[in-house]
Amino acid sequence: MTSPSFVLTLSCTNVPGIVAGVSAYLFEAGCNILDAQQFDDVETGRFFMRIVLNPVGAPVAADALAAGFAPVARRFGMAWTLRDRAERRRVMLLASRFDHCLNDLLYRWRIGELPMEVCAVVSNYPRETYGHTDFGTLPVHHLPVTPETKPAQEAALWRLVQDTGAELVVLARYMQILSDDLAGRLAGRCINIHHSFLPGFKGARPYHQAHARGVKLIGATSHLVTGDLDEGPIIEQDVERISHRDTPEDLVRKGRDIERRVLARAVRYVLEDRVIPNGRKTVVFTD
Amino acid sequence: MTSPSFVLTLSCTNVPGIVAGVSAYLFEAGCNILDAQQFDDVETGRFFMRIVLNPVGAPVAADALAAGFAPVARRFGMAWTLRDRAERRRVMLLASRFDHCLNDLLYRWRIGELPMEVCAVVSNYPRETYGHTDFGTLPVHHLPVTPETKPAQEAALWRLVQDTGAELVVLARYMQILSDDLAGRLAGRCINIHHSFLPGFKGARPYHQAHARGVKLIGATSHLVTGDLDEGPIIEQDVERISHRDTPEDLVRKGRDIERRVLARAVRYVLEDRVIPNGRKTVVFTD
Amino acid sequence: MTSPSFVLTLSCTNVPGIVAGVSAYLFEAGCNILDAQQFDDVETGRFFMRIVLNPVGAPVAADALAAGFAPVARRFGMAWTLRDRAERRRVMLLASRFDHCLNDLLYRWRIGELPMEVCAVVSNYPRETYGHTDFGTLPVHHLPVTPETKPAQEAALWRLVQDTGAELVVLARYMQILSDDLAGRLAGRCINIHHSFLPGFKGARPYHQAHARGVKLIGATSHLVTGDLDEGPIIEQDVERISHRDTPEDLVRKGRDIERRVLARAVRYVLEDRVIPNGRKTVVFTD
Amino acid sequence: MTSPSFVLTLSCTNVPGIVAGVSAYLFEAGCNILDAQQFDDVETGRFFMRIVLNPVGAPVAADALAAGFAPVARRFGMAWTLRDRAERRRVMLLASRFDHCLNDLLYRWRIGELPMEVCAVVSNYPRETYGHTDFGTLPVHHLPVTPETKPAQEAALWRLVQDTGAELVVLARYMQILSDDLAGRLAGRCINIHHSFLPGFKGARPYHQAHARGVKLIGATSHLVTGDLDEGPIIEQDVERISHRDTPEDLVRKGRDIERRVLARAVRYVLEDRVIPNGRKTVVFTD
Repeated sequence: MTSPSFVLTLSCTNVPGIVAGVSAYLFEAGCNILDAQQFDDVETGRFFMRIVLNPVGAPVAADALAAGFAPVARRFGMAWTLRDRAERRRVMLLASRFDHCLNDLLYRWRIGELPMEVCAVVSNYPRETYGHTDFGTLPVHHLPVTPETKPAQEAALWRLVQDTGAELVVLARYMQILSDDLAGRLAGRCINIHHSFLPGFKGARPYHQAHARGVKLIGATSHLVTGDLDEGPIIEQDVERISHRDTPEDLVRKGRDIERRVLARAVRYVLEDRVIPNGRKTVVFTD
Repeated sequence: MTSPSFVLTLSCTNVPGIVAGVSAYLFEAGCNILDAQQFDDVETGRFFMRIVLNPVGAPVAADALAAGFAPVARRFGMAWTLRDRAERRRVMLLASRFDHCLNDLLYRWRIGELPMEVCAVVSNYPRETYGHTDFGTLPVHHLPVTPETKPAQEAALWRLVQDTGAELVVLARYMQILSDDLAGRLAGRCINIHHSFLPGFKGARPYHQAHARGVKLIGATSHLVTGDLDEGPIIEQDVERISHRDTPEDLVRKGRDIERRVLARAVRYVLEDRVIPNGRKTVVFTD
Repeated sequence: MTSPSFVLTLSCTNVPGIVAGVSAYLFEAGCNILDAQQFDDVETGRFFMRIVLNPVGAPVAADALAAGFAPVARRFGMAWTLRDRAERRRVMLLASRFDHCLNDLLYRWRIGELPMEVCAVVSNYPRETYGHTDFGTLPVHHLPVTPETKPAQEAALWRLVQDTGAELVVLARYMQILSDDLAGRLAGRCINIHHSFLPGFKGARPYHQAHARGVKLIGATSHLVTGDLDEGPIIEQDVERISHRDTPEDLVRKGRDIERRVLARAVRYVLEDRVIPNGRKTVVFTD
Repeated sequence: MTSPSFVLTLSCTNVPGIVAGVSAYLFEAGCNILDAQQFDDVETGRFFMRIVLNPVGAPVAADALAAGFAPVARRFGMAWTLRDRAERRRVMLLASRFDHCLNDLLYRWRIGELPMEVCAVVSNYPRETYGHTDFGTLPVHHLPVTPETKPAQEAALWRLVQDTGAELVVLARYMQILSDDLAGRLAGRCINIHHSFLPGFKGARPYHQAHARGVKLIGATSHLVTGDLDEGPIIEQDVERISHRDTPEDLVRKGRDIERRVLARAVRYVLEDRVIPNGRKTVVFTD
């Protein structure tokens, strides 16, 4: 798949003719449709689509394609994005003391599984916390936080987002609750991993809650961050079986595996433009 | 496995010597241990055990075995049961309009998968609701219920439990909430299937709640009934993946499969003496 | 979803303009696209598509739609089908001694989960084998078979297929190997459930093979029947965890659950036109 | 769990009195049974047991316990082991070009999830292959191999096993086939990860085989190494769902996740003395 290809995502009110309009434009623009998925939300009357396409003849720039597509988009009142798949999104990773998600994301990035550029790693713990992690030339920022310094720390965080041009912020078991203000600013480009099968066991120490309740499966949830804690639109979830023999510590251990695979999938889905928000929910065009 | 065999379950405060005491008695009584599982709850200091055993020489009656074991049980202050595995527990099945769980349990009973005797089928819907179900000679009781007649209906239910000698009552998608009084009387011998992955989506219309929240997996939960609705000790849970394409109706369809397998497993675990209550939780010695 | 709707499936050599051509036609014909999935097989250069559509204005007959679509199909050299979703496919169910799949399919049919018309139930066992199954008015045929009578029995089977107009034949644990001749005649409209996770444990007694090998998961496979036994294109598979404690009989019991859910899914996928053969494989547009 | 505790594993011909004999000895020796699991293989008449125990009074040395237990073991003709759980097994990790399993095992070891001492890392690729892996002070050996040098390389490998006192050798996607001779020498203390759901897709390029066959789930298998390639007793397996959209490259990516979690579980099971060979199979006392 070495020829340049693009991903087009769009959503709009559902009316007849959308697919015909889009595909006619792409055909005229000399593009082949490599993959397409769509979804009609019959409850809301909203239409969602993701198309992977490539120019079959002469190379075409994303700009030119986008300019050509704009009138189609306008006609249907679309929210839409068009990206060159070769362009890697700039991603900021936030972590705290537990580094299993951080290490996992870095590993997947290194071997090319996650098409991103890591523009910053941020932690409220000092760099020594990650003694065995090879950050290479990645910029690592230590932004400690206390209740008193939280506004200042978040201001620093926000500056870093702006300075690095981060397009996606991943809370990789970052154990600080973002203020409503920062959560609001990052809304739509920030994803979190919560270590429970939401909506069960919101809040703190979910594995201990799960142990106390005696559930037979535990899970993890990756969701878009909104101002409403643990209530953001869910991107991905998974579970694993446990038994009465499992202590809270066993749940934490089993949970690490679930967390890292759920977060990694969610990050990949976002990077590949597979996730489109739909009110309190998401449309996820999985592969 | 045609020779008579027994299941012994016990729980008591954990002290050294329990296994030695139990196994020494069984050896002296001429019994072989076919299977044994145990669990020490380090939080509560409570010990749980399930032993499958058979006499190796002359046949032994359950009564004689139990009489011999009583002093051992007394020594350790055990709560215990001893059952002949050939004896089938008397089970009452309660259902409402949806009959997928009822039909599934009856099918598994017919082919010998569930070692029970169905002593009664009870529904708040008339028998015609189940036009295609072959109840054979099973007694089917129609106990309709309205808010006004609920006390009288529950009294009739309770009489039926007593008259039939039901040792286990299975709420097979019985869509009535038992009163605290009846739930209390049935506590310990009544199991329910809730059509959500508890503790998420308690209460009514859980599939619609799940759809509205946008979760990516749905589940079902079988639990012991206590006075505290949807809060009884969990016996078994399972889940299935869903997507944004699934309507509430799709969730109901997928849920039927989860519900019936979760309930069938829970019933089998109880019938095989694999479930021992442990406060708000259960110990389940699965196979 | 009370308005008439249609399912269009198509496959052809992949060239630019297919989606544009199809969607333009549907738009002009006054149809809305409710759902669409497509797949480009880059290895073979073949394109597959499934579209659910409904006329937005005046009702349109399938015939008229098909007549209008034929030129588009011809232009791209498509293999295609167009069906009214309200039309129920005629299905023949074949079973032998074990009736868990048969009962499960009949139950799902009765509650409307499987949109089909059961045109015949056929078994090589007498009807009394299914004493507790309510066949209602369904025609049940007993076609016993021995090595000597096999050709005659298969001839009778084939006549039944023709006489009943069966569009789909489901081998619901029918424990007879079809001759190459009959398999060939039924190719493309016959699906089987094999009680192993193919390609592991082909042939007879797969659960015993699995037990002897000591695998930690067992499975079942539903596939299109071809002349090549256990080698037909796979439609659906699933597995369940087992342990060293499970006897071959336990595997048979656990397997029943896997078999019936795998076969039921495969049948539903076929009835909803979600399965398109692709050489030795299938394209399955799941929901 | 800071007090010293031990794991006793044993297997012998099944006769009455084993549990009584073992538990009586432990009680007399002042030991508490923290956990016990047992299994009677009714096919072979063999009995298997794993006991976690700790002295309740004065500390006891493993040697003294073992000396006391020896007569019990002799009486029943047991194969048995007794280990102090605080002692970490010496483990040698072998890898080739793909390092996802190697990195995963090292990570789990670093955070204390795998109770082992890594005595050597060996690869047929040079150390630079793992540029971003922090081996710290671990000895890393480069043992390149060609068809010509294979006997010499294996001799070097074997010397390393002896010199380092490796008690367990883990083939963490080591892509060389061990000679029968070396496999025989390592039998019982060497585990491998095979990237297919055995017995399906033995041999080379299993993901490509799976893609060609069109299966709907792929898997991985960890097994004890014997002289018989891909036929050793299976310790652990797992699978993941795939679809027609997945290319062989996608299978390789999804497979990495399955491989590393299957191998990590198998290694943990072995390190915690949960795995007892049983002919062509294993008994695995999972938690």
